Amino acid sequence: MEALKQKIIDEGVVVSDTILKVDSFLNHQIDPMLMQEIGLEFARRFKNNGVTKIITIEASGIAVALMTGFNLGVPVVFAKKKEANTMAKQFYTSEIKSHTRENQVTIAVAKEYLSADDRILIIDDFLATGEATKGLLNIINQSEAKLVGVGTAVEKSFQSGGQRLEEQGIRVEVLAKILSLENGKIVFG
Amino acid sequence: MEALKQKIIDEGVVVSDTILKVDSFLNHQIDPMLMQEIGLEFARRFKNNGVTKIITIEASGIAVALMTGFNLGVPVVFAKKKEANTMAKQFYTSEIKSHTRENQVTIAVAKEYLSADDRILIIDDFLATGEATKGLLNIINQSEAKLVGVGTAVEKSFQSGGQRLEEQGIRVEVLAKILSLENGKIVFG
Repeated sequence: MEALKQKIIDEGVVVSDTILKVDSFLNHQIDPMLMQEIGLEFARRFKNNGVTKIITIEASGIAVALMTGFNLGVPVVFAKKKEANTMAKQFYTSEIKSHTRENQVTIAVAKEYLSADDRILIIDDFLATGEATKGLLNIINQSEAKLVGVGTAVEKSFQSGGQRLEEQGIRVEVLAKILSLENGKIVFG
Repeated sequence: MEALKQKIIDEGVVVSDTILKVDSFLNHQIDPMLMQEIGLEFARRFKNNGVTKIITIEASGIAVALMTGFNLGVPVVFAKKKEANTMAKQFYTSEIKSHTRENQVTIAVAKEYLSADDRILIIDDFLATGEATKGLLNIINQSEAKLVGVGTAVEKSFQSGGQRLEEQGIRVEVLAKILSLENGKIVFG
């Protein structure tokens, strides 16, 4: 998606060979018009797949997921990050490795918002190692809902999370695929 | 706003005399169409006030704030909840009392996203004791930006946060004002 790639070129900050900072329009400050364009594009790609619900993880996945849900006309559920000791049996939970902190994080979705009849689209802002997506897949599997696919605004494909999902037969739609951040240079795929 | 009040009547769960659970459309699962209606209504109320930026707090404020930003055509910044020891000097920070946990939470906004020229609208999902809003006001004051007003989807007016803001001369716009949750009954104002 050209508008997103251009925004990354204009405002993205390459912090290291593996870290791209897009705090000015996606992860801290949000550009609502760009989010709407992203939502429209995901809706275009998944409109014939009978999606009944979108799932994402708080906090930075919410904007992208909300606009996709708005354009597909379906509800959005955001998994909550919790401390393990606050978990109750009315939640599906999964452990994920945090990519910013060193500890594990528990993500949780209330059982009442996922059912075996649901056709779920996972939407997130970033796909890197795929740890967060793996946690959502685990939760979807517990609910026996059907996974339609995964949509990510940005993929850092050199961290191989997307490839591993596709090797499992999962459809992955990426709006801006980044092959490399080496030497401070953003290389799109 | 009738659509929001009706949704609260249909799906809200009165957990106690002070706690209303609206997880099915606002705080965990999100209804994007209702969020758009809410955003349109806030935009209608604040469209002549020269708002340049919207500020909210992660995670459940993001959906309401995003749709308001979408309809006003301005960026949205969400304050991040952090542990105090991860704070760096490029952030404005404020301590707020958490209403769900017993500890204090630090909220943070990167300095680069607030300037003295900004006219800020605070948008949140809930206004209760006003602790979260007070934290945002503190951050806005540090940045020397001008506050235009506060918009909240739901106010629990019996917890007096809105009243205290208005006593400071702050404009507070509420879409669904709840006077009481006593005896399991939702009384709107």
